[in-house]
Amino acid sequence: MTSVRRLFAKRWSLSRMKFTYMSGRYMSCPPKNQAPEAVARKLEWKAQLGTNEEKQSFVLKTPKGTRDYNPKQMAVREQVFNTIINCFKRHGAQTIDTPAFELKETLTGKYGEDSKLIYDLSDQGGELLSLRYDLTVPFARYLAMNKITNMKRYQVAKVYRRDDPAMTKGRYREFYQCDFDIAGRYDTMVPDAECLKIVHEILSELKLGSFLIKINDRRILEGIFSVCGVPENKFCAVCSSVDKLGKNSWSDVKNELIQKKGLEPKTADQIGDYIQQSGGPELIEQLLMDPRLCQNKQTLEGVRDVKTLFEYLTLFGVTSQISFDLSLARGLDYYTGVIYEAVLLQDQKESVVQLESHHKEEVGSMAGGGRYDGLVGMFDPKGRMVPCVGVSIGIERIFSIMEKKAEISEQSIRATTTKVFVAAAHKSFLEERLKLLSTLWDFGIPAEMLYKKNPKLLSQLHYCEETGIPLVAIIGAQEMEDGVIKLRNVATREEVNIPRGNLIEEIKKRLALS
Amino acid sequence: MTSVRRLFAKRWSLSRMKFTYMSGRYMSCPPKNQAPEAVARKLEWKAQLGTNEEKQSFVLKTPKGTRDYNPKQMAVREQVFNTIINCFKRHGAQTIDTPAFELKETLTGKYGEDSKLIYDLSDQGGELLSLRYDLTVPFARYLAMNKITNMKRYQVAKVYRRDDPAMTKGRYREFYQCDFDIAGRYDTMVPDAECLKIVHEILSELKLGSFLIKINDRRILEGIFSVCGVPENKFCAVCSSVDKLGKNSWSDVKNELIQKKGLEPKTADQIGDYIQQSGGPELIEQLLMDPRLCQNKQTLEGVRDVKTLFEYLTLFGVTSQISFDLSLARGLDYYTGVIYEAVLLQDQKESVVQLESHHKEEVGSMAGGGRYDGLVGMFDPKGRMVPCVGVSIGIERIFSIMEKKAEISEQSIRATTTKVFVAAAHKSFLEERLKLLSTLWDFGIPAEMLYKKNPKLLSQLHYCEETGIPLVAIIGAQEMEDGVIKLRNVATREEVNIPRGNLIEEIKKRLALS
Repeated sequence: MTSVRRLFAKRWSLSRMKFTYMSGRYMSCPPKNQAPEAVARKLEWKAQLGTNEEKQSFVLKTPKGTRDYNPKQMAVREQVFNTIINCFKRHGAQTIDTPAFELKETLTGKYGEDSKLIYDLSDQGGELLSLRYDLTVPFARYLAMNKITNMKRYQVAKVYRRDDPAMTKGRYREFYQCDFDIAGRYDTMVPDAECLKIVHEILSELKLGSFLIKINDRRILEGIFSVCGVPENKFCAVCSSVDKLGKNSWSDVKNELIQKKGLEPKTADQIGDYIQQSGGPELIEQLLMDPRLCQNKQTLEGVRDVKTLFEYLTLFGVTSQISFDLSLARGLDYYTGVIYEAVLLQDQKESVVQLESHHKEEVGSMAGGGRYDGLVGMFDPKGRMVPCVGVSIGIERIFSIMEKKAEISEQSIRATTTKVFVAAAHKSFLEERLKLLSTLWDFGIPAEMLYKKNPKLLSQLHYCEETGIPLVAIIGAQEMEDGVIKLRNVATREEVNIPRGNLIEEIKKRLALS
Repeated sequence: MTSVRRLFAKRWSLSRMKFTYMSGRYMSCPPKNQAPEAVARKLEWKAQLGTNEEKQSFVLKTPKGTRDYNPKQMAVREQVFNTIINCFKRHGAQTIDTPAFELKETLTGKYGEDSKLIYDLSDQGGELLSLRYDLTVPFARYLAMNKITNMKRYQVAKVYRRDDPAMTKGRYREFYQCDFDIAGRYDTMVPDAECLKIVHEILSELKLGSFLIKINDRRILEGIFSVCGVPENKFCAVCSSVDKLGKNSWSDVKNELIQKKGLEPKTADQIGDYIQQSGGPELIEQLLMDPRLCQNKQTLEGVRDVKTLFEYLTLFGVTSQISFDLSLARGLDYYTGVIYEAVLLQDQKESVVQLESHHKEEVGSMAGGGRYDGLVGMFDPKGRMVPCVGVSIGIERIFSIMEKKAEISEQSIRATTTKVFVAAAHKSFLEERLKLLSTLWDFGIPAEMLYKKNPKLLSQLHYCEETGIPLVAIIGAQEMEDGVIKLRNVATREEVNIPRGNLIEEIKKRLALS
């Protein structure tokens, strides 16, 4: 079969795609009753006629809500990952990896109203599977399965949500989460404070702009609901509505509470009075003096824990970016105590027009987390609890900000790490180039050449300037005779002949200096 | 809701799991008609009776053919990834990332008989999607979509195959591939030789034992089939059967060729005579003198290319681990030219019993790849071809070998990078510990403490020995008074008092030396 025929045969099968998968069968070889030549002729004829029947049926794209990363984006991503992972390691965390899909039942009943966003795998026989929705539930499953009661772990991996994508805002259906969690029965708020310190370190180090970390506690929220007269069986539903405050206005949330969740208008108003408050230690003291709220033991414990948390955060020197915010609810169902979310603020300078209405506007959520003391117990056959607290860094939004910054700064991002380019001054040095290249690789020096037999020197040097390669090793007839290699500094254009025996040493010396 | 109630409410919903997903609805809050107290009582009562009805319905496991990586396995994995990625970077490759799933039609018609192993996502409305089966097809889709005609890229990511898992042999349904590919129209065999050099570098650097890289060419295989009288429309089918040689014996393959693929016994025998040959340049010369084989232009080109390839591999100094093997077929449908596969050989020392039958036994495939000049054209709306060649390193098998090596060598693998442990000599130093810890983190020093308020000194020191932390900073009453911190070397148990103002400097000095 000639390669052209092969190509046509393949494209033929492509055009049959819809039929083949509808009937559940797959084929890649041409069917027996039609010779590839016939198919080729047919395609050619169609192309001449300009009827693109079989081409239109094929859409060249990534799935909705997903994207590719190109090499420059990957370079930015690697930098962000390094910052985050180094921080996690600095805090003594281990890392694990779990499969991208879990048994469907592992995810069932963990995400409240958001469960509808879970991607299921097709039932092709065997177990029913779903793509992971976050890294927290797999971590809890891992702890229960391995009977682990103490662990500080980080995990950086993709998660999947069939959400409405908003790609310009960094909301994708496939996205990375960078999670740090501490599992174990410890003294109150010590691990929780470390999670917040981590968020603070990462957002500071990434230099994304000013940010605010909001904290609240599920027990306080539930105390508020209880005091305002929400029936206990509506707590979860009310919680999801309150979580929308910020994205939606209070009047929208109030409407939802009354119309969809069936609350009395009076109850909704009372909730509104509470949850629209935010502040610091003074708000904590105010709540501690609210006799109705604090008659509930759980709520009182929540307020006291937030107080302790503020004390530890003061020791860490990070309270200026922390706000106790009673509207913070967090959508996920598994939180049982402290919850938090970090938002980026648009600098005043950048939003001068809005100065009168807001001093700093929230741009978007960069990280979130909280305490989930019941989740591991849901997986343990004997219901043994392992208290956990953790935080998840939302990477996609960070990427999009970093990418814009890189664009603005016009810094050229290198997508490769090549240090030396092997060039030929004239024709016919392919073998010499291959030999030198091989030597450089064997000495661990990142090196490249053009794959052409006889490339022009100018196009070789141009390639180096374009891709940022700092050194060129040039092989020429005269140099061959003299037993030297011409080493060129791309930036200064300075050239010097180096004896072949000293080349590796000389290159290593220059690379160490740069 | 108390946290105990919450827990029971959640577990209740777990026990309902099967009902909830069968009816397509999800719930995480307890149903309105049953108070959590009632559920708690019921569960307690069941536990006393010892009936584990709702517990048995839940299986705590990862999906079939998948696994978790624990922290020590992750440490080994990181080391393997670094070796591989450094090699790819040394060769000047850029990296990209693509989604874990693609449009179903993107994968259709690319994998021949293996297409049945593709994981499909459930049709939940919207596009039909499948998990990627390899990284090659997404790369080709990426090139066509972005109209890229030249690129050297690597990608390290998970792929998914509904294969029969054999976990002890490193065959999983979710596994990593590390791919390096060169796209572009270049001089013959130059990029192909680099791919083989890369396999050689990586397998040498990982020190897994002796290995062999088998090479062949699809055009030669097809020439053999043609000469032996296989009808052209059976080439793909015959190719898949021949690919099983090695795993299966020749007589099994022959049977399959005759009975399943409908070949004449004589044809099968002739194929057998050809494909059971392997060797080096002498075999190439022998084929060049086979007039029937070389009358086909494509086949002749294939043999000549293999000859050129051997010349370049000689320049690279790697031919002692290369074998031209006419039985190598590679299952995937998209290959059009040179193909290769690296196998690990069991050392003679380790397999003394088998010395008489084989000198070196093949243990398993570690890497494979080849040239696929037609794949990008299948995606391009105008059918424009971008010739490509690449290699995929099979990581899981390498991991399992590295893990066994680590076990045997009894080297303790550290799962964290913590350098300093902050300890309290007596009770009541929680605040002081948190402050010191915070300072260490802010200076970029990886540090930990125990989260207890009043841990015993002995258990703190024990923790350091267990986890391999080299330094301990001890806070005590006397030290506080004297304005010093006691710095302890865990290995030597030597202790010295350091003035607080010099602590960071002293720690950095010690870490630089170690």
